[in-house]
Amino acid sequence: MRLLMSSSAVRLTALLVFFAGAATAQPADPLPSWNSSVSRTALVAFVDKVTTAGTPDFVPPAERIAVFDNDGTLWAEQPMYFQAFFVFDRIKALAPQHPEWTDTEPYASVLKGDVTRALAGGERALLQMVMATHADTTTEEFERLVREWIATARHPTTGRLFTEMVYQPMLEVLSCLRANGFKTYIVSGGGIEFMRPWAERVYGIPPEQVIGSSIKTRFEMRDGRPVLVRLPELNFIDDKEGKPVAIQQHIGRRPIAAFGNSDGDLQMLQWTTAGPGARFALYVHHTDAAREWEYDRASSIGRLDAGLGAARAGGWTVVDMRQDWKVIHPAEKK
Amino acid sequence: MRLLMSSSAVRLTALLVFFAGAATAQPADPLPSWNSSVSRTALVAFVDKVTTAGTPDFVPPAERIAVFDNDGTLWAEQPMYFQAFFVFDRIKALAPQHPEWTDTEPYASVLKGDVTRALAGGERALLQMVMATHADTTTEEFERLVREWIATARHPTTGRLFTEMVYQPMLEVLSCLRANGFKTYIVSGGGIEFMRPWAERVYGIPPEQVIGSSIKTRFEMRDGRPVLVRLPELNFIDDKEGKPVAIQQHIGRRPIAAFGNSDGDLQMLQWTTAGPGARFALYVHHTDAAREWEYDRASSIGRLDAGLGAARAGGWTVVDMRQDWKVIHPAEKK
Repeated sequence: MRLLMSSSAVRLTALLVFFAGAATAQPADPLPSWNSSVSRTALVAFVDKVTTAGTPDFVPPAERIAVFDNDGTLWAEQPMYFQAFFVFDRIKALAPQHPEWTDTEPYASVLKGDVTRALAGGERALLQMVMATHADTTTEEFERLVREWIATARHPTTGRLFTEMVYQPMLEVLSCLRANGFKTYIVSGGGIEFMRPWAERVYGIPPEQVIGSSIKTRFEMRDGRPVLVRLPELNFIDDKEGKPVAIQQHIGRRPIAAFGNSDGDLQMLQWTTAGPGARFALYVHHTDAAREWEYDRASSIGRLDAGLGAARAGGWTVVDMRQDWKVIHPAEKK
Repeated sequence: MRLLMSSSAVRLTALLVFFAGAATAQPADPLPSWNSSVSRTALVAFVDKVTTAGTPDFVPPAERIAVFDNDGTLWAEQPMYFQAFFVFDRIKALAPQHPEWTDTEPYASVLKGDVTRALAGGERALLQMVMATHADTTTEEFERLVREWIATARHPTTGRLFTEMVYQPMLEVLSCLRANGFKTYIVSGGGIEFMRPWAERVYGIPPEQVIGSSIKTRFEMRDGRPVLVRLPELNFIDDKEGKPVAIQQHIGRRPIAAFGNSDGDLQMLQWTTAGPGARFALYVHHTDAAREWEYDRASSIGRLDAGLGAARAGGWTVVDMRQDWKVIHPAEKK
């Protein structure tokens, strides 16, 4: 029944597009923020190919799965992953309940505003801070904390809300794929419950299509009411080799299109393109120092090194942000 | 866009139902295998309530999540969980590669056909056999093994294919809910990759809506091709307190309807009904010794004891299989 409804919806959409086309003589461009480019052409050709019935590359709607990394692919990730700002703000908010943090690293440095020193302990220090700030709440309380923070917190250099730091051309890709019967998923190294509260509003991606890193939770009854308590214990890191593992666990079928921006996405792109039939893999290459940031092989955040070689060898699409994108963020739209 | 398409599809369905109704004077009964009963009435009233726009109980389609246990709820589970037959058949198939099994328990008993003795070690022995038979393949190989087995293996007492042991009245509930804009999920203690290969064909539930117990997998490159290798290491047991945990992990929102048959489903039903607004919880009570099996409080498989008390206290729906269902399995349909 779900399949029937899904294909009915596709036919309905096709019909609406047809009438819209008849009225305006030319259907609206689904990718208005993309310059004519090799990458745009490759994307459009792929969508045409898999949605044209009766051809060998046709893919039924149920199998049109597209996966997107989030940090650096759907929204920016400089000067550090946005979730780290949430972690630091939570440490400041929780500090009164943790007087010991005043002279315990990495908390002490966060409270003094010394981000560099706070992160000097590398991934281990960051993970420690994530545990301290993301656990010991119920899932409902945590969702509320994220909602409140994301509604007001602002990027340190642009002054924009973090949700305004999304990439307009990628929003158009998401919409275009969904209009063509695709199911769009986020597959991110970021926290699954950090993304879910706003992914539907910002990206049109519902909670059940958000995959990410997670801590464990425990079911318990509190005053006769069931709650899920978030525990300071790692459950899963959704990065590198973890991405195909999580895709299999959550989706149970191989995507036909994958979008990323770093070596952390490489295995997801390899897994996606290794299936039979038409496949599409795209790297967003951060090449725009003026409008965004310029970084790749040497960056500690979003390093893209092995991925560039794999893209060349595999004939994957590499977006040159500076050349290919008319605007970066939604606010720049005319 | 997904939401728009989904509600378009719902409207289209409503329209089609309207025209169908106009042509035949009376729309077809969506639950033809259900006798008039308290349980049928409660189910229909719930669906009407949450789908009637403009009322306080209306639930938008995106939030119409229904979760179903599998063993004993969607298909039978006697004389033992059907997946155990798959385990035993795999042990027999793998025995030539494991000469040591001839005198190692529990394998030796399986090979001698002594199921009772093979299962004497309880859950630990069963888990050991699951690991030995479900791991050390790629995900693709395992899917093929399940497909081949489920296409031919037969139930020991009825002689039917296991997929013919599904409950016709529950197939009608699944279809009815989906026709009313619900997304239907399996949330089972059974293996997630044991159910996915046939759940879409048999239940209309796609792989991404199947949740279950799992072992770990590892991404690796074999001859330049990426594979996911199944490891003999437990990842997650999707039973009891694990069910709400898995629902949050996979779906990220609380279901509004839950269907089970045992104490293993109790926490899922508690979690579902504890949310605000209209909620529906249903237990299938195995009361039909003639057409199926009769068991509850004292059964080692599908024990329903605490759940019966919770159902009474919470006003949940309890299906009396003998009284409420006209037919049990699809083959009995006139």
